[in-house]
Amino acid sequence: VKNYEALLRLFSAHLENYLRELSLKQPKELYEPENYILSLGGKRIRPLLALIACDLFDKDPKQALNSALCVELFHNFSLVHDDILDKAPLRRGQPTVHSKWNKEIGILSGDVMLVKAFDALRSYEAGQLKELLSIFVKTSIEVCEGQQMDMNFEASHSVSVEDYTHMITNKTAVLLGCSLKMGAINGGAPQEDADHLYEFGKHLGVAFQLMDDVLDAFGDANFGKQTGGDIIAGKKTFLLLKTFELADKKQKESIDYFLSLDSSRAAEKVRGVLDIYGHFNIRVLAQQEADKYTKEAVRHLHLVKASEQKKKELEAMALNLLNREL
Amino acid sequence: VKNYEALLRLFSAHLENYLRELSLKQPKELYEPENYILSLGGKRIRPLLALIACDLFDKDPKQALNSALCVELFHNFSLVHDDILDKAPLRRGQPTVHSKWNKEIGILSGDVMLVKAFDALRSYEAGQLKELLSIFVKTSIEVCEGQQMDMNFEASHSVSVEDYTHMITNKTAVLLGCSLKMGAINGGAPQEDADHLYEFGKHLGVAFQLMDDVLDAFGDANFGKQTGGDIIAGKKTFLLLKTFELADKKQKESIDYFLSLDSSRAAEKVRGVLDIYGHFNIRVLAQQEADKYTKEAVRHLHLVKASEQKKKELEAMALNLLNREL
Repeated sequence: VKNYEALLRLFSAHLENYLRELSLKQPKELYEPENYILSLGGKRIRPLLALIACDLFDKDPKQALNSALCVELFHNFSLVHDDILDKAPLRRGQPTVHSKWNKEIGILSGDVMLVKAFDALRSYEAGQLKELLSIFVKTSIEVCEGQQMDMNFEASHSVSVEDYTHMITNKTAVLLGCSLKMGAINGGAPQEDADHLYEFGKHLGVAFQLMDDVLDAFGDANFGKQTGGDIIAGKKTFLLLKTFELADKKQKESIDYFLSLDSSRAAEKVRGVLDIYGHFNIRVLAQQEADKYTKEAVRHLHLVKASEQKKKELEAMALNLLNREL
Repeated sequence: VKNYEALLRLFSAHLENYLRELSLKQPKELYEPENYILSLGGKRIRPLLALIACDLFDKDPKQALNSALCVELFHNFSLVHDDILDKAPLRRGQPTVHSKWNKEIGILSGDVMLVKAFDALRSYEAGQLKELLSIFVKTSIEVCEGQQMDMNFEASHSVSVEDYTHMITNKTAVLLGCSLKMGAINGGAPQEDADHLYEFGKHLGVAFQLMDDVLDAFGDANFGKQTGGDIIAGKKTFLLLKTFELADKKQKESIDYFLSLDSSRAAEKVRGVLDIYGHFNIRVLAQQEADKYTKEAVRHLHLVKASEQKKKELEAMALNLLNREL
């Protein structure tokens, strides 16, 4: 995220201050996991979007620092709780909170991070606070709903591509839109512009997730990341659900056969499913779907009344990120 | 809570409306547990305190209905998560959320209730919202800290009576103070009066918890509730911690012996510990400690500039509740 290094440094310093204060707080069992997960890194894409949006309206991006902290705290709360729900041992290559400590501490330190996301907003004057709270509460509820849908999908045999898009919109995409909208509010943006930025972020988020599905199955030449994780886990991605939509009875049985293979036959499993994906040209279909959302995102960005140069930079960053993980 | 039946009915109707809207929401796996726990009953003491406080300043108590909903949602969020942490099978005689559904649903439906507690405040105008958020966020963080302290105490061998008072203040008492203060804010109370009501609720909350410890060990002739649950569970209550403070080495060994008895010798365990409590006159010491907090609570109530008659009613209700569960 080259053009935005100054904004990222600004947020890093703000987060470091926050963590320094946190390290003085008791009981440490509650706050050490928060410090740990927030220090694991990540791209800080959500706080960055808040600062960028504020800057678009020529306000000092510092105005958006606590909105940025709010969305980063919320994001990390959701990681800690989701990792418990998903029984995930690792996060960013390190032990998850509940595996480093325990589930109880994971639940409770997640809870306090969620409260602290709201706490971060208290610094804003009353009128702005009310606006910020409105979009942030709505988004937080949608993220919880998205996570529950994701859990339901695991057990369901009738998930459609439409259901999937609805799920990823809630679970992932709306928080990107929310981050931008909060920054825009801090920047004093007119309602219309704040809403266009929200839609930009939301549509981009869906495109990100679709590209994430593609990368997991087909890899990324630039990064050499191991592929096929979603297939091995039997995850209901766009790729799998779209294939099921297009497949006839015999082809569905064939997919089910490969998905039923256990971990001792992982390579065969991945190869088998990828062959079927290839048959239906699923990679291209997924990229086309992602393109559709990207175009709609960019359309909303262009409607924002702000510096063309700044909008161009934001668009370039977004397109660049589309080939990477969030 | 006789004098306040009209206020309780007001809140019940408000909660029913909320639950009716909730029952239309998807995904149902997320919202059914919320509906379930909120429908299990309870005394609704926190929402009642919010309405009472608002009424003290001669404002329509309806003004405090969403603050009341906020604290009741928060309280129920904390019950759902605490029951997971405590591995509790029952709540109000019914299966806990995580045992009726599962832990994952318990975590996530708790999370969404916590967000909805904040959501409930969005109806207030900006200035009041900022004030409400300030006390509610502070309190929510303290409740999480109190729960973590409680968890730490289970594993610790050096908990003092002072630590215990600090823990119950955070875990239980501050939310009562917060409920009153939020209602007072809705009632347009001067800062000073809102703060006195907060202190009234907080001190009362400590007294409640101390009396709860007494009732668990020694029972309540009016209710015939089974006693000794805390002793059987080896819970570090005021009674046990105070006894340890007063006991010499040999007496401590004797307590440890009785506490080490397993469930097959529960009656002997309870009798043994109660004998030692009797030796130190612990019941009276606990009641004196509760009285100290009650007196301080009432002192703060008297300092509130409001109708003497209304304050008298609130005092009577508080003293009455002191012999019951919260």
